[in-house]
Amino acid sequence: MSAENSSVFPASAGLAFAETVEQTLAEYFARRRGADADIGPEFIEAVAELEQFVLRGGKRTRPAFAWAGWLGSGGDPDGAQGAAVLQVCAALELVQACALIHDDIIDASDTRRRFPTVHVAFARRHRERGWAGDAQRYGHGVAILLGDLALAWADDMVNAADLEHAARERLTPVWAAMRTEVLGGQLLDITGEACGEEAVEAAMRINRYKTAAYTVERPLHIGAALAGADDALVGAFRTFGTDIGVAFQLRDDLLGVFGDPAVTGKPSGDDLRTGKRTALLAVALAHADVYDPAAAQLLRTTVGTPLTDDDVATLRAAITDIGAVADIERRITELTESAFAALDASSATAEAKSRLREMAIAATKRTW
Amino acid sequence: MSAENSSVFPASAGLAFAETVEQTLAEYFARRRGADADIGPEFIEAVAELEQFVLRGGKRTRPAFAWAGWLGSGGDPDGAQGAAVLQVCAALELVQACALIHDDIIDASDTRRRFPTVHVAFARRHRERGWAGDAQRYGHGVAILLGDLALAWADDMVNAADLEHAARERLTPVWAAMRTEVLGGQLLDITGEACGEEAVEAAMRINRYKTAAYTVERPLHIGAALAGADDALVGAFRTFGTDIGVAFQLRDDLLGVFGDPAVTGKPSGDDLRTGKRTALLAVALAHADVYDPAAAQLLRTTVGTPLTDDDVATLRAAITDIGAVADIERRITELTESAFAALDASSATAEAKSRLREMAIAATKRTW
Repeated sequence: MSAENSSVFPASAGLAFAETVEQTLAEYFARRRGADADIGPEFIEAVAELEQFVLRGGKRTRPAFAWAGWLGSGGDPDGAQGAAVLQVCAALELVQACALIHDDIIDASDTRRRFPTVHVAFARRHRERGWAGDAQRYGHGVAILLGDLALAWADDMVNAADLEHAARERLTPVWAAMRTEVLGGQLLDITGEACGEEAVEAAMRINRYKTAAYTVERPLHIGAALAGADDALVGAFRTFGTDIGVAFQLRDDLLGVFGDPAVTGKPSGDDLRTGKRTALLAVALAHADVYDPAAAQLLRTTVGTPLTDDDVATLRAAITDIGAVADIERRITELTESAFAALDASSATAEAKSRLREMAIAATKRTW
Repeated sequence: MSAENSSVFPASAGLAFAETVEQTLAEYFARRRGADADIGPEFIEAVAELEQFVLRGGKRTRPAFAWAGWLGSGGDPDGAQGAAVLQVCAALELVQACALIHDDIIDASDTRRRFPTVHVAFARRHRERGWAGDAQRYGHGVAILLGDLALAWADDMVNAADLEHAARERLTPVWAAMRTEVLGGQLLDITGEACGEEAVEAAMRINRYKTAAYTVERPLHIGAALAGADDALVGAFRTFGTDIGVAFQLRDDLLGVFGDPAVTGKPSGDDLRTGKRTALLAVALAHADVYDPAAAQLLRTTVGTPLTDDDVATLRAAITDIGAVADIERRITELTESAFAALDASSATAEAKSRLREMAIAATKRTW
């Protein structure tokens, strides 16, 4: 249930913006370092690890959507509110840092962006320094606290942004909804995985809250709210964001089973081996229960167990033959079309429409 | 490193206020339940556990100090800002819920307030329902996410309070400092425990940030800031809060070694058995290194190992004989005196002075 997904922002257009986000974050960490130095060197040392984690990777997807929502609602990047809005956009990366650090504990992941995860890094430090007690427990403890700190600082960073009063009033409920939705989506996800949830509706609800709301819909909504967009434009962005966000996750599901390891960087059929409860699997099971009980039984008894490459090939064929791939592809197409229809009919600026279309295509048609 | 301490609020005076805080929290949960129902029944079920955790116990110490700071700075409970200030006070209990839930994972604690801890309760649910995967990992995952949710909702609850603009501007940096200080104090604590920190200065810094700033100083500061207290009064409250908060923790250290199990509800010599790095132990080691190397060696080789009641008695005698108890008692007296001097010389209302004096005595002279 990785909370990180590939970039949905074309590298060419996004690079300069990502650098601006990183600079904003680096400046915020520098200010905190001065203010919090009294707490002690052990704290400063741990925060330095958090800062490295935040700065060394990530495509800044959520800030990019928030910024696009603001520009697309008529926000002026050179105007008086530009810097404050950028600070709110960058703060989304601190929420994301909390999500990733805590997610890596929950999933017992050892690496993230080719580096050791935070809990693994601190467990290693414990061992290298020959400290007392259980190294793994220490690593978990530090990672839990650093994730909490990232979540608290995300709010601090938003509160410290020099927003106009009315803009802050509009932002507050959207920011609150975004945080609750991603935590709610993660709770649904781990509970669905534990109880062997098979309903398509449940998988789609996880996609809605854990991915779509958190990654696309609410960031766009945050940008639009800050710019004071009217209800119609906010509604259009939210429809676009929900639909593209879900379509993005469905593409991710397909790549998790059919993706080329050389391109995705993950083992072949990774989701089949880990037993991830995706919409793709839920649709396959629902179809198979009706049309091919033997295939249903095969899926239920093998997905989530150790699989050979031949097993993966057999399962891929079963999922395709039962029509699940075609069903998911159809949903992606429908969602993309409804997203574009909402965007086209909206009062968003022409530049934003073009930019968001580009981001949406990158997100839903990618092969990586 | 339990983040929960005994009440520092006299039961007679505090009962009605604690009930008001609980009612405010219950109303907030009810509002969220309606707003977040779409996320799904699994989410609502988990949030209900969080709500029970928040409502079923705790002495509401931090809200009580914040409220005392506000009243003591001239805040009018029947005035236009009373309800909003109360909401901010109550939100401190959501920060505390996060601290306790995450602390219980870090400390691998099984019970809290005579109930199973959150991670234990959800692991049990996983087993009872015969779910797939590792029950303990599921319990940890849910508890991490519910702690995050409590932290996010604390900020939401503050943001939703109907504060005057100027009051909110004054509150924001104090609220931010409080959250960072408690997380920083916890990081110092687990790192000090891991690396076998022995410096008295380090133990006092943990007391300062993890207990004093979080439990007394910043809550009072929050109340004073909301009321628009002048710098002198804010300074007096902060001095009082820091000194009483540290004195409170030093009393806790003494009770952790010398407390009567029938009164404290904890095993005799609990801190000696768990090897907690307290200021009392640091002072004992510092004295023993100079005056009684054999006692120093005894402490270093036995504290934190399984101990018989006779062992505990021997260690208690060593700590007392080396003068550590007298030293800590002297520090408690000095801190209490300096706290009262700051309070007496301040412009706080007479009623607040009397109330805070009562709370301070309860906190630093208790036997439980």
